[in-house]
Amino acid sequence: MEYRIEKDTMGEVNVPANAFYGAQTQRSIENFKIAQDINRMPKEIIRAFAYLKKAAAITNQKAKVLAKNKSVLIGKVCDEILDGKLDNEFPLVVWQTGSGTQSNMNVNEVVAYRGHVLNGGKLTDKEKFLHPNDDVNKSQSSNDTFPTAMHIAAYKILVEVTIPGIEKLRDTLKKKSKQYMKVVKIGRTHFMDATPLTLGQELSGYVSQLDHGLKAIKNTLPHLSELALGGTAVGTGINTPDGYDKNVAAEIARLTKLPFKTAENKFEALAAHDAIVEAHGALKTVAVSLMKIANDIRMLSSGPRSGIGELFIPDNEPGSSIMPGKVNPTQCEALTMIAAQVMGNDVAISVGGANGHFELNVFKPVMIYNFLHSARLIGDGCVSFNDKCAVGLAPIESNIKKHVDNSLMLVTALNTKIGYYKAAEIAQKAHKEGTTLKAMAVKLGYLTEKEFDEWVIPAKMVGKI
Amino acid sequence: MEYRIEKDTMGEVNVPANAFYGAQTQRSIENFKIAQDINRMPKEIIRAFAYLKKAAAITNQKAKVLAKNKSVLIGKVCDEILDGKLDNEFPLVVWQTGSGTQSNMNVNEVVAYRGHVLNGGKLTDKEKFLHPNDDVNKSQSSNDTFPTAMHIAAYKILVEVTIPGIEKLRDTLKKKSKQYMKVVKIGRTHFMDATPLTLGQELSGYVSQLDHGLKAIKNTLPHLSELALGGTAVGTGINTPDGYDKNVAAEIARLTKLPFKTAENKFEALAAHDAIVEAHGALKTVAVSLMKIANDIRMLSSGPRSGIGELFIPDNEPGSSIMPGKVNPTQCEALTMIAAQVMGNDVAISVGGANGHFELNVFKPVMIYNFLHSARLIGDGCVSFNDKCAVGLAPIESNIKKHVDNSLMLVTALNTKIGYYKAAEIAQKAHKEGTTLKAMAVKLGYLTEKEFDEWVIPAKMVGKI
Amino acid sequence: MEYRIEKDTMGEVNVPANAFYGAQTQRSIENFKIAQDINRMPKEIIRAFAYLKKAAAITNQKAKVLAKNKSVLIGKVCDEILDGKLDNEFPLVVWQTGSGTQSNMNVNEVVAYRGHVLNGGKLTDKEKFLHPNDDVNKSQSSNDTFPTAMHIAAYKILVEVTIPGIEKLRDTLKKKSKQYMKVVKIGRTHFMDATPLTLGQELSGYVSQLDHGLKAIKNTLPHLSELALGGTAVGTGINTPDGYDKNVAAEIARLTKLPFKTAENKFEALAAHDAIVEAHGALKTVAVSLMKIANDIRMLSSGPRSGIGELFIPDNEPGSSIMPGKVNPTQCEALTMIAAQVMGNDVAISVGGANGHFELNVFKPVMIYNFLHSARLIGDGCVSFNDKCAVGLAPIESNIKKHVDNSLMLVTALNTKIGYYKAAEIAQKAHKEGTTLKAMAVKLGYLTEKEFDEWVIPAKMVGKI
Amino acid sequence: MEYRIEKDTMGEVNVPANAFYGAQTQRSIENFKIAQDINRMPKEIIRAFAYLKKAAAITNQKAKVLAKNKSVLIGKVCDEILDGKLDNEFPLVVWQTGSGTQSNMNVNEVVAYRGHVLNGGKLTDKEKFLHPNDDVNKSQSSNDTFPTAMHIAAYKILVEVTIPGIEKLRDTLKKKSKQYMKVVKIGRTHFMDATPLTLGQELSGYVSQLDHGLKAIKNTLPHLSELALGGTAVGTGINTPDGYDKNVAAEIARLTKLPFKTAENKFEALAAHDAIVEAHGALKTVAVSLMKIANDIRMLSSGPRSGIGELFIPDNEPGSSIMPGKVNPTQCEALTMIAAQVMGNDVAISVGGANGHFELNVFKPVMIYNFLHSARLIGDGCVSFNDKCAVGLAPIESNIKKHVDNSLMLVTALNTKIGYYKAAEIAQKAHKEGTTLKAMAVKLGYLTEKEFDEWVIPAKMVGKI
Repeated sequence: MEYRIEKDTMGEVNVPANAFYGAQTQRSIENFKIAQDINRMPKEIIRAFAYLKKAAAITNQKAKVLAKNKSVLIGKVCDEILDGKLDNEFPLVVWQTGSGTQSNMNVNEVVAYRGHVLNGGKLTDKEKFLHPNDDVNKSQSSNDTFPTAMHIAAYKILVEVTIPGIEKLRDTLKKKSKQYMKVVKIGRTHFMDATPLTLGQELSGYVSQLDHGLKAIKNTLPHLSELALGGTAVGTGINTPDGYDKNVAAEIARLTKLPFKTAENKFEALAAHDAIVEAHGALKTVAVSLMKIANDIRMLSSGPRSGIGELFIPDNEPGSSIMPGKVNPTQCEALTMIAAQVMGNDVAISVGGANGHFELNVFKPVMIYNFLHSARLIGDGCVSFNDKCAVGLAPIESNIKKHVDNSLMLVTALNTKIGYYKAAEIAQKAHKEGTTLKAMAVKLGYLTEKEFDEWVIPAKMVGKI
Repeated sequence: MEYRIEKDTMGEVNVPANAFYGAQTQRSIENFKIAQDINRMPKEIIRAFAYLKKAAAITNQKAKVLAKNKSVLIGKVCDEILDGKLDNEFPLVVWQTGSGTQSNMNVNEVVAYRGHVLNGGKLTDKEKFLHPNDDVNKSQSSNDTFPTAMHIAAYKILVEVTIPGIEKLRDTLKKKSKQYMKVVKIGRTHFMDATPLTLGQELSGYVSQLDHGLKAIKNTLPHLSELALGGTAVGTGINTPDGYDKNVAAEIARLTKLPFKTAENKFEALAAHDAIVEAHGALKTVAVSLMKIANDIRMLSSGPRSGIGELFIPDNEPGSSIMPGKVNPTQCEALTMIAAQVMGNDVAISVGGANGHFELNVFKPVMIYNFLHSARLIGDGCVSFNDKCAVGLAPIESNIKKHVDNSLMLVTALNTKIGYYKAAEIAQKAHKEGTTLKAMAVKLGYLTEKEFDEWVIPAKMVGKI
Repeated sequence: MEYRIEKDTMGEVNVPANAFYGAQTQRSIENFKIAQDINRMPKEIIRAFAYLKKAAAITNQKAKVLAKNKSVLIGKVCDEILDGKLDNEFPLVVWQTGSGTQSNMNVNEVVAYRGHVLNGGKLTDKEKFLHPNDDVNKSQSSNDTFPTAMHIAAYKILVEVTIPGIEKLRDTLKKKSKQYMKVVKIGRTHFMDATPLTLGQELSGYVSQLDHGLKAIKNTLPHLSELALGGTAVGTGINTPDGYDKNVAAEIARLTKLPFKTAENKFEALAAHDAIVEAHGALKTVAVSLMKIANDIRMLSSGPRSGIGELFIPDNEPGSSIMPGKVNPTQCEALTMIAAQVMGNDVAISVGGANGHFELNVFKPVMIYNFLHSARLIGDGCVSFNDKCAVGLAPIESNIKKHVDNSLMLVTALNTKIGYYKAAEIAQKAHKEGTTLKAMAVKLGYLTEKEFDEWVIPAKMVGKI
Repeated sequence: MEYRIEKDTMGEVNVPANAFYGAQTQRSIENFKIAQDINRMPKEIIRAFAYLKKAAAITNQKAKVLAKNKSVLIGKVCDEILDGKLDNEFPLVVWQTGSGTQSNMNVNEVVAYRGHVLNGGKLTDKEKFLHPNDDVNKSQSSNDTFPTAMHIAAYKILVEVTIPGIEKLRDTLKKKSKQYMKVVKIGRTHFMDATPLTLGQELSGYVSQLDHGLKAIKNTLPHLSELALGGTAVGTGINTPDGYDKNVAAEIARLTKLPFKTAENKFEALAAHDAIVEAHGALKTVAVSLMKIANDIRMLSSGPRSGIGELFIPDNEPGSSIMPGKVNPTQCEALTMIAAQVMGNDVAISVGGANGHFELNVFKPVMIYNFLHSARLIGDGCVSFNDKCAVGLAPIESNIKKHVDNSLMLVTALNTKIGYYKAAEIAQKAHKEGTTLKAMAVKLGYLTEKEFDEWVIPAKMVGKI
C-alpha cells in the first residue's frame, strides 16, 4: 500500500495515501488491534456524528467563530457521510479509548481532509483548508460529542427500527386476537390443564405486553433527548460561544427532525449515561416479553403428533438435516436467542454505566455498542417474526376442541355451586378412574346430569369477550 | 410440640396445636425445606395480602356473595396482620410453588382460623366459621391474588421507602451543591487532570442523576398500579361476581390510599410480570447512579496523605483492626455493595420474568423477593449514606487549591487564542520539564506573562454558575 | 434496655448491658441501618471466623506471642460460637464496610468479652482479661481474616451442603435412568417430534450434566483452599511471627478437617476474590443444568389430559386455591426459581469481584453473601427436589406408547434405505393427509409393507442401551 | 443479479447464479433478515465445520458407507474453507434456527456444490456428484454437528488466542514484578493510605490472578474436548455406522491436533451446553481479574499532577480533542470495556444454556457467538494491553517516595511495641495536627526518637521479598 505522512501533536504517522482520515485514526488502528474484523464502531454512531458536526459548524458560524465557507464545507462532507458514501473511512473499533475520542477524531479528520479535497486541495498538502481540531471540532470535545452521538443514535434507532418493529408485531397479534376471540381452548397454568379461555384472550395478553413495552420505551425517550453538546471538556462549556449549547441542540433537532434539546445538567451528561441504562432497561423488558410470547407460540405449535398442537405456524424451511419432513419453529428460536442476547447486553451496559469516574464515564463505546445491538435485534427480530411466523398463525381447531372436552378443570365452575372440596373430590376421582367429570359428579351424587350440563359450559367460563 | 389435625383436599395433616395456619401451610413447610432460616416470604407480601383479602371480603359482601359477619371478621384478622400481630404465622419460604399458591393458602388459613377463634371458636373445632377457600379466597385464585400482592407490595415500598430515601440523599447533595458552587477545583477525565470546574458543579451532576432516577422510577408506577385481581384462575375472571375486578381494585385503593386500578388485560397480569421487570430496570438505573456517586466520593476523599484528598467525609468508626487510626469510606462501601446486589437481582428478575408459560408465570416469588430486596436496599442505603456520610461532606480547600494551581490542563483556555497545536506543545513541554504552564508559554514565545495571567484564570474556566 | 459503656479508639459507646459485643459492633448497628431484619451476616461466616480465631490463637501461642491461658480461653469461646450458643451476639448486616472489618471486630469483641466472663470477670470491668485487638486479633487484620473466613465458609458449604445435595439427586436420576433404560419414547427437538430414544437415555443426559457440574465445582476447590491469613493489612504479613501463615493454615486444616493451605500470593488473596467468582461460575453452571432438568420434567409431566403426560410425578399438595383437584409440578418450580436466583447472584458476585482496588477488594460481604446463598439454595433445592419429586418419577407408559406409535419422525430410519428426499416426501404427505408413515410409504411405492416393518422399528432406533 | 434454481424438500428457490450454496441457505437469507450486516455466523464456526465434515467423510469412507472419491472431494472443499477461500459463501446470521441447522446445511451445500464443480460439474447441473444431505451430511445431523463445531471452535480459540494472550500479559507483569520487587511504596486499602508494600509485590498479585485464571480456563478444556458427533438426531446415534462416534472424534483430533474425544453421553451433548457455560464462567473470571488490574494501573498512573502519579504508562496517542497535551490510559479503558462485555456475554450464554428443552438446546448460535466474542476480546485485549501499555510500565519514584514518607499508617509497626490503642492515638493526633508520626509519638511520650527510627522502617514492613 502507498502512504502519505500526516501529523498530530505527537508527531508524524504513515497513513494510507488515499484515506481521508489522518494521524490519530491511524494511531488507533495500530494501537487497538482488537477484534478489528467484527467490532467496528457502529455506523449509527458515525452518522450521528455527521449530524452533530454539521449542526456544530452551522452554530459556530452563526456565533461568528467559524467562517461561512468552512461551515458550508463541513456540512457537505457530513451529508456525504449521511449518504453512506464514506463508510470505509471509519475503520476504528469499539475497543478504543473509553471516551470515544478516537472516533471523534476519526470524524474530525475525515471531515477536514475530505473537505479540503472537495475544496480543491490535495491530501498531500501540508496545510489543509480545514483543521480537524480547530475547525471541525470547534466548540466541542470528545467528551460532549460522543455522548451526544450516543443519544442521537439511540433515539433514532428506537423510533426508526425498534418501535416500528414492535408495533408491527403488536398489530398482527391484535388482529389475530380479534379474529380468534371466540375460539375456546384449554388454559394452562404450571404447564397443567386449567380452566378454559379463548385463543383471542390468550393472544390479547401478548398484545398487552407489547403495548406496555412500547410505553416503557417511550417513557425513556425524554432522557435520551437531552444532549451533552456544549459541555465540552468537563461539562462547564469551556471554549464555547454564548448560548451555544441550546443553539446547537436546536440545530440537531432541526436536522434530525427529532425533539432533541440541550441537557439541563452537562456534568451528568458527560460523567454518566443513565439514560442509556434506563432506556436499555425498557428494551430488556421487551426482550423478556418476546421470550414469553415466542416460547408460548412454539409450545402451542409443538407436535405435530406428540405435542400440544393447538397452533399452526408457517413452514419456512426444512427443519432437519437428518429427519426428513421435519418443520421447526425457527422464528421463535431466533427471537428467543435475541431475548437472551438483550438480557446479556443489559449487564454489559449496566457495568459500563456504573463505572464512570469523576467528570467522565469512559465506557461509552461499549455501552452504545450494546444498546444499538439490542435495539436493532429487537426491531429486526420482531419484523422477521411477524412476517415469517405471526402473520401465519392459525388455530388447529380439532386439537383445541379435544383438549377442552377432556379437561378436568372445568370442575372449577362447580365451586360456587357445591364448594371447593366436593369439586376437588370429583376431579381427583375422575382422574384416578380415567373417566369424565360428568360421570364422576353424578356417580358421587353431588349433582344431576342436567345440572352438570347447565353449569359446566366451557364457552361460559371465559368471561366477557 | 403438640399438634392438632387439619385437613385439606388431600387428607389430614398434623399442625402445631396453636398455629393459626392449617394443612396446606404445614405441607409446604415439610415439602420445601429450602433455606427456611433465611428466606421467608417477605413480610411486605404478607401485608399486601392482608389488604387484598380485606378488600375482597368487602367487595364480596357488597356483591352479596359473602355474609356481612364473615366479611367483617375477615377484615379484623387482616387488620391484625397489618399491625404485625400475626407475623409468626407465616413461616413459608420463597422457594415454594412458583404461583405463590402456598402463601395465598397460608393467608387464607390464618385468616379463617384466627377469625374462627376471634369469633369464639376453637382451633380444634372440626368445622370452622370461616372456610379458607370458600370464604377467605372467595372470588379469588392464587393466580390473581399473588400478582396483586406483588404490585401492592412493590408500589408501597417504592413510595414509602425507596423514593423517600433517594429524595433525602438528593436533597442533601443539592444543598451541598449550592453551598460549594464557587469552590473551583480540578476536573478529572480518564482519571487524568482536566480543565477545572467547581465542587458545586460536580455535585450537581449527582443531583441530576438522582432526579432522573426518581423520574425513571415514577414512570414505572402506572404499570405497577394495575392489579390482576378479578382474573382468578387464568384471567377470564371465572367465579367472580359482576364488576368485581373494578370494585375490588377501588377498595384496595381506598384501603392503601394509593392509586391502584384493575388491570385492563388480566391475561398479561397473570402470565407475565413485565411491570416488575420494568420497574426494577429503573431501580437498577438508580443503583448504577449510586455506584458512580459513591465511587467518586470515596476517591475524592482518598488519602489522607497519599490520595486525592479533596473531600472530607465523617469518621464513623475505627477503620482497621490492625492499622491504628485508620478511617475508611465505609458508607460508600455499603452503598456500592448494594449497587452490585441490585445489578444481580435484576438478572434474577429478568430470568424469572422471561420464563412465564401460557396462562401463568411461575417465578412470582423469586421475582418479588428480589424486587423488594432491591427497593429496600436502595431506600435504606440512601438514608444511611445520607445521614452518616453525605450530610458531613465538606471540601478540603488546601488540597483543592494545590491541585488547581498545578494543573497543566488550564492550557485549554489558550486553544481559542493560539490554537490547539501550540497549546499542546506548551503542556507537553511543561510536563516534561516539570515546570509551570506560564513559564513554558513564555519560554516558547507564544504569549507574554501578562497575556497568560489575563487568559488563564481557573475561576473563569468553569462557565456560568 | 439497660446499657453499659464500652470504649474503642474513637471514644465511648453505649452497649446493651448483657451483650458480649462491644463498642465497634454497636457503632456498626447504629451506622448501618440497612435491611437489618433480613440481611444479617451469614452464620456460616461467623462460624468460619470461630475456626480461624481459634487457629490463630493456637498458632500465636506456639509462636510465643500469646500466653497459653489466653489462647485456651479464646478457643473456648470459639467452640461456643461453633456450637451455636452465641448466635445472637452477631447482629451486624452484610451492608457494612466492604472489608468486613466490623464483623471481624464483632467476633473479636465477643471472643474477648465472653472470654473475660468465662474467666470470672464481669462485662462492666474496665480492663478485660482479653483485648479484642491485641489478643484476639493478634497477627491478624480484617483484611486477611475476612477473606479467610470467606474461603472456609465457601469450601465447607460446598462439601457439606451443595455437593451432597447434587449427588443425592444425581444418584436418584441414575437409578431411574437404569430402571427405565428400555422404555422407548418419542424424542423431541425444537419442541417437535423427533426420532425415538428411551426414557433411561433421556434421564442419563441429566445424570451426565450433574456429573459434569460436580466436576466443575470440584475443579474450583483448590483455589478456595488457599487462605489469605498471614497477609494481615496489605498482604505483606506485617506484625506476624515467622512461619505464621503456613502454621495457621495448617491449624485451620486440622480443626476443619479440610485441606486448607496458605495462599501462595497474599496480595491477590486480599485484593481479589477470583476464587469466589470462579467457584460461583461452577455453581451457576449447575443452576443452568437444574433449570434444564426441572423444565424437562415439568413439561414431560404436563397434562394430565391436554399436555405431554409421559411422566408421573408425585402430588405433594393441592395445586390451586380455585381449581379443585389440580396438582402442579411445584418442586420443579422451586428449583427453577433457585436457578434464576443463582444466575442473578452470579452477576452480583462478578460486579463485586471486578471492583477491588489496589491492595483490597471491599465487596467482600456482598460476594460471600451471594455465594453462600447460591450454595445453600442448590444444596437444599436438590435435596427437596430429590425427596419430593425425583424419587417418585415414573413413566406413564400408555401415553409414551401412543406418542411413539404416532410419530412421523420414525421415517428417519429410511434415510439410509431410500435417501433423505424420498423419506421427507413420505413424512410430509403422511402429515398432510393425516395418515400413517407406513400407509404413505406404500402408497408412494417407495417400499413394501414388509420392508417398512423390517426397517422401522422404534426399539432398534435407539442405539445400544 | 443472475440466479439459478436450486431445490430442497420444500421446493424450488432462486439462488445467485455463482453462489456455491443452495436452496436452504438462500431460504435462511430471506427468512432471517436480522442484523445481516453485523452478525454473520462467526468464521471460527465455519472452519470448525470444515474440520468435522472432512473427518466425517474420512470416517464414513473407512466404514464403507461413502465412496472414496466422494470422501476425497469433500476433504478438498473443506481444505479450501480452512484456507479462507470460500468465506463469502457463508452469509447466514447468528439469528436463525437455534439448532444451527441452516449453517450446517450452508456448509453441506457449499461442500456439495463446490465439490461438484471441482469434480468438473456445473452449478446448473440438475444432479450433482455430491448430495448435501446424503453425502456431505452422512452419519450426521445438525443436532450433533453444530455442537461439535461449537466445541472445536471454542477449544481452538482458547488455546490459540485467549490463553496465549493472557500468558503474554502475565509474563510481562511477572518480569515487571521481579524488576520492581524492591521499590517500596504506600499500600492502599479502601482507597485510603495503608501500610507499605513494594511495587513488585503489588504486581505479583496481578500475576497470581492471571495464573489462577489460566488454571481456571484449562480446567474447563476437558469438558470442551467432548464431542457430540455420532449422536445424530437425538443422541442415540441413529443412522451411523458402528464405532462411528469414537472414530470420527479421533479423526477430528488428528486433523486439529487437539485432544478431542467422543462425549460419553450424547444426550447431554445435544440437549445442553454446560461445557460452554462452564468455560465461559472461567473467561468471566479472567475478565473480572482484568478489570481489577486495568483499574489499578489507570488509578496508579493518574495525574500527572493531581492524581496518584506513581506509575508511568506509555503515551500512545493524543488524549483529548480539546485539552492539548493530555494523555490518557486508553489501553486500560479498552480492557475494562472488554471486561464489561464479557460479563454481559456471560448472562446471554447462561440464559441460552438454561433454556434447552428435551433432546435439544436451541440457543446454540447465540451461545457460541458470545463465547467466541469473549474469547477473542480477552485474547486480543491482553495482547494490545501488553504491547501498548504493560511493557512500558515503570515506577515514578519521586512520587512513590513522597507518599511513603508522608504516610501515617507506618504507625502499624508500633502495634506490637506499644499496643493498638496508643498507636491509634499517635496517628489520629498527627493527622489532626498535620505533623509527622515521629513528632507526635515523641510528644505523647510513648517512645523516643531513637526507638521510632529503629522500629518504623518502611523497607522492613514489607515482609520477605
